[in-house]
Amino acid sequence: MARIITWLGQTGQRAQVGGAVARWFAQRHRRVLVVTHCPNPALDRELGAVLTPEPQEVAPGIKAVQLQAIVLLEQLWEELKALEARYVKSPFFRDVYGQELSVFPGLDSLLTLNALRGYRQNDQYDVILYDGASDRETLCMMGVPTLADWYYQRFTQVLAASEFSRNVSPFVSPLFGAMFTNSWDNPNPEQPKQLLENLFRQGQALVNDPQALCAYLVTSDQDTEVHLARWWWGSAQQVNVRVQGVLLTEGEPATLGDRFAPLPVGTVENLLDFDQMTPVPPPLALDLEAKQIQLFLPGFSKSQVKLTQYGPGLTIEAGDQRRNITLPSQWQGQSITGARFHEPYLTITF
Amino acid sequence: MARIITWLGQTGQRAQVGGAVARWFAQRHRRVLVVTHCPNPALDRELGAVLTPEPQEVAPGIKAVQLQAIVLLEQLWEELKALEARYVKSPFFRDVYGQELSVFPGLDSLLTLNALRGYRQNDQYDVILYDGASDRETLCMMGVPTLADWYYQRFTQVLAASEFSRNVSPFVSPLFGAMFTNSWDNPNPEQPKQLLENLFRQGQALVNDPQALCAYLVTSDQDTEVHLARWWWGSAQQVNVRVQGVLLTEGEPATLGDRFAPLPVGTVENLLDFDQMTPVPPPLALDLEAKQIQLFLPGFSKSQVKLTQYGPGLTIEAGDQRRNITLPSQWQGQSITGARFHEPYLTITF
Repeated sequence: MARIITWLGQTGQRAQVGGAVARWFAQRHRRVLVVTHCPNPALDRELGAVLTPEPQEVAPGIKAVQLQAIVLLEQLWEELKALEARYVKSPFFRDVYGQELSVFPGLDSLLTLNALRGYRQNDQYDVILYDGASDRETLCMMGVPTLADWYYQRFTQVLAASEFSRNVSPFVSPLFGAMFTNSWDNPNPEQPKQLLENLFRQGQALVNDPQALCAYLVTSDQDTEVHLARWWWGSAQQVNVRVQGVLLTEGEPATLGDRFAPLPVGTVENLLDFDQMTPVPPPLALDLEAKQIQLFLPGFSKSQVKLTQYGPGLTIEAGDQRRNITLPSQWQGQSITGARFHEPYLTITF
Repeated sequence: MARIITWLGQTGQRAQVGGAVARWFAQRHRRVLVVTHCPNPALDRELGAVLTPEPQEVAPGIKAVQLQAIVLLEQLWEELKALEARYVKSPFFRDVYGQELSVFPGLDSLLTLNALRGYRQNDQYDVILYDGASDRETLCMMGVPTLADWYYQRFTQVLAASEFSRNVSPFVSPLFGAMFTNSWDNPNPEQPKQLLENLFRQGQALVNDPQALCAYLVTSDQDTEVHLARWWWGSAQQVNVRVQGVLLTEGEPATLGDRFAPLPVGTVENLLDFDQMTPVPPPLALDLEAKQIQLFLPGFSKSQVKLTQYGPGLTIEAGDQRRNITLPSQWQGQSITGARFHEPYLTITF
């Protein structure tokens, strides 16, 4: 399956790097797909083609596609209708046309994630270079599998324990019966549950494996930009995305000092070796013996990192994001005895 | 209630314009609130302060706030819990803490919209200058009230006509009964419906009134940027947002020719008069006598505009967005006799 590489940085700079890296891989006979959003004139110019919603060859070994949310939605709607027609006794989705649906906030992220999953499983590409609409959207999207899993587990747990659930359960079977065809005479509520849980697990496995998915920071050597790039570096850790290096579009790597250590720093003229995985600290490391959790959170100051222990787990707040950690069973119910943020590490002791 | 003004353009450029316009209004003794997202170091620098999730005074007459999605979510969750406790017999939201919730894609747009609504109704400000996370997110967010209304109406209609609905309706009353307290002994399904419809209507009224909400394009005179600015101009029409002018951060207005006509073009040094409303064509005009619909869609080429007549209305596709138009009752069921796109107008005849 194809590797996914993404960029965190400003649009024009990302386009410049994306084009150069696509050529780097093509020279090494890797089949490259550049995936971006509409509109992205900077990337169109960089690749010398007006990108379309279907992958097109823009150079030998390099294809590119410009995802259009409404086109993706239409395709997905047809798949949903087919599923509905198969399982539901009297389908009603069939009366709504894919061509009349619009994209609401957040839906484009889910559609993009689904499209990337499809391109990755398709055996036509070795590398997918993803140029997102914004850093915020890219990271939010990569966090979806973990987040959706958490919401699902947490609310299932709360609902199952509630009086509401006991009151509602007598109606669930007849409801299912009314919805599904005879082939689902004994509706098995486990089936959609398993389907969902598998989806979450697959998504998480992808994000958690730096061989499958990683990011590079793209920045100039200007102070505001360096500051912002470090913020996105830390934010990436919050959704388990490994940052593997820095690419400067302006300035000399030497002038940055150790602000990005231990990441290698390259330039557009002098690219990094993208086949080489940089040994970076994992976003989260658990030491069962020392009863410690260590989080790698570069780019934040002490006041920007907050820790709360509520319900069945731990919540780490940093970079306008939250990360929920489910504790190992032997630690559950135990209190934190110490927490220390010494950039780039947050160390929590039980 | 406060006027909302927003910018479509790149982050750094938007920050520069936002600061200058805030000072313009403050000089005229208007109480200004600058609303932005986290992180936005360019705006922090422009306003000379590190912005926080609570409004703070950054200059005489100018307050500024940096919305943090997780902070907004926590506040909203407390409100939701209070509502639940009031109406639901055995609340279960109370067992989930606001501090453990994370923001999923799309939720931040809804939270921002809700925050803007609050600041607008609050009598402390005359003008709200909104600097969004990206143009894409800003427009997607402004489209929410219309879109949510459409989805709600369309799916209510399809569901009401379905066999599913007939099968499910016997369970609705006991379900409501199981959920709500005795004060809602005879659960009135109209109540949440009205609440929702009112919310949609209020949101649409805000977006459709250029005195209440308008946008300015921010760009340099570089060709790629002008091209992009024109794309966002057209995209704004698709969600009914009136663009009132252009602000150049680099270059001379004269060099742009009539690419933005009839919009006035200013510069950061020579700002426009923001109290003056520019007479711009409405995004959609209906001529009942001529049986014509005219849409104002600048910035697109003919191949980027698509029209489909499905179900009970019309769908206009342009700028990776769809706009659904409900036809006047006397036209429903009639076919289109002509459609012509001659930039900037799409004219449809029945």
